[in-house]
Amino acid sequence: MTNSPSSASSPNKNLLASLPSTSVQIELRVRYSETDRMGIAHNKNYLDWFEMGRTEYCRQKGLSYRDIEERGFYLVVVESFCRYRKPLRYDDRFLVRTFLRDATPRKTVFAYELRTADGQALVAEGYTAHVPVNRESVFTSLPEELLSVLTRP
Amino acid sequence: MTNSPSSASSPNKNLLASLPSTSVQIELRVRYSETDRMGIAHNKNYLDWFEMGRTEYCRQKGLSYRDIEERGFYLVVVESFCRYRKPLRYDDRFLVRTFLRDATPRKTVFAYELRTADGQALVAEGYTAHVPVNRESVFTSLPEELLSVLTRP
Amino acid sequence: MTNSPSSASSPNKNLLASLPSTSVQIELRVRYSETDRMGIAHNKNYLDWFEMGRTEYCRQKGLSYRDIEERGFYLVVVESFCRYRKPLRYDDRFLVRTFLRDATPRKTVFAYELRTADGQALVAEGYTAHVPVNRESVFTSLPEELLSVLTRP
Amino acid sequence: MTNSPSSASSPNKNLLASLPSTSVQIELRVRYSETDRMGIAHNKNYLDWFEMGRTEYCRQKGLSYRDIEERGFYLVVVESFCRYRKPLRYDDRFLVRTFLRDATPRKTVFAYELRTADGQALVAEGYTAHVPVNRESVFTSLPEELLSVLTRP
Repeated sequence: MTNSPSSASSPNKNLLASLPSTSVQIELRVRYSETDRMGIAHNKNYLDWFEMGRTEYCRQKGLSYRDIEERGFYLVVVESFCRYRKPLRYDDRFLVRTFLRDATPRKTVFAYELRTADGQALVAEGYTAHVPVNRESVFTSLPEELLSVLTRP
Repeated sequence: MTNSPSSASSPNKNLLASLPSTSVQIELRVRYSETDRMGIAHNKNYLDWFEMGRTEYCRQKGLSYRDIEERGFYLVVVESFCRYRKPLRYDDRFLVRTFLRDATPRKTVFAYELRTADGQALVAEGYTAHVPVNRESVFTSLPEELLSVLTRP
Repeated sequence: MTNSPSSASSPNKNLLASLPSTSVQIELRVRYSETDRMGIAHNKNYLDWFEMGRTEYCRQKGLSYRDIEERGFYLVVVESFCRYRKPLRYDDRFLVRTFLRDATPRKTVFAYELRTADGQALVAEGYTAHVPVNRESVFTSLPEELLSVLTRP
Repeated sequence: MTNSPSSASSPNKNLLASLPSTSVQIELRVRYSETDRMGIAHNKNYLDWFEMGRTEYCRQKGLSYRDIEERGFYLVVVESFCRYRKPLRYDDRFLVRTFLRDATPRKTVFAYELRTADGQALVAEGYTAHVPVNRESVFTSLPEELLSVLTRP
């Protein structure tokens, strides 16, 4: 453990090293209720924003996440990670860029970059890992048809 | 990447390997508003529960987190990680055990275990890393006095 | 409209005038994430606390709200009202007292009082109105059996 | 009290009777985390959406709400009311129309209409009442200069 916020031995150091070149981008603003008494956006909201990022990712690829669920596949979150680099304040505009880092029938991993509205500064980065379950909450496999939509360039 | 939800190469595999032996425990119930349309507690709420865990951790050690802030030290979250193992449903009771994994003047790391109310099954585990800033949001060092409270056995 | 926060002509002036004498009480603390940049609990959270109040109300009367839903009855919120009298801050303890103001097969109204932990000062008050729907989201009637549980003294 | 969801004697029956003719409109989508296990948007989120509506209202009138706070005026919520007419589901688009119903130096009241994305169906309606406080949380008066911005046609 060093004094730096992200220690050199951090397992997630190379989080973005192997990101695909394409991403889907949305722009958001920090809601008043998303701030806390420190005056900055509370850490839990980043997971919301990640989720909005992957909702748009799916839509851009041609299949809304709601449609995926209506076909009986639920992408349950099994891991989440976020590194918070710069605070966001009420009404700040920012970008969420969503990348598909991995997609197999049994696991999907999305990665995210939050940037200031001008795209210059990195605000936060993270990932979420998902496994598909069916309507009865039993682990299942994503059919090839859905995978090919998600991995569409 | 394997098919397993938590891949063998996961950087966080040994998350709890080196946890201290003492922890502070609270019991919570899942709120209705914390569930989502899948019928389970939404992933963002675990970060809330972690926070409630460390609030109680500080209180048990003899200094409320509110007091720490009133002395001018804010433990900003710079990293969060959670592995979700079993879903929680509305009104489920569960335990949050909070461990202090690391505490230096420049960085504090708390680890968490969520368990079913009987303590048997692991529901989720994770950690949050924090750096101290002062009232002007400038990085600072936690004084020895505060560190010794947090690390009290 | 006058200058007073709660105008004399307010329709809800007598909100608590006819409250039943019995209530179910829980004690809560304000979570960090429930505060906003003004340093006080955000107004939306009071609706959460009301909900926790009625969850405990049902449990105390002998039937958990989860059980009610498992029997196929969902008490959808059709109105909510809250008057905020004193701000709550992070880690403040407070009481939620829940009253059943009205219960007919087609509509249920709960009223709430939030008080400081010593019970002295009124922090907020409000109500929520609910109508029962079935699993297909169609309006239905609460059976006598359920009503009699809710209205148990 | 009748069996109807909105009883005839409801104090808020004429909620929208006297709304000003002009409003500011935004379009939103329901976030996944805003749904609950009933599959619909949870009642607390409507207060968030109202807040986003008044944030945009202020911006459109030429002064962001953040600027108002930076001048030392905080519009604390003292009352909230919402009537929920039609459920909203994940990813549904909807409109929030914000009206300034009243503005005096001591009290401001915003009213809101939520409509389906095509503007046809009323989804919800409500209001929030606010009183200005200063940085020390003491009741104050909104200066004429700010009032004239808010009431700009």
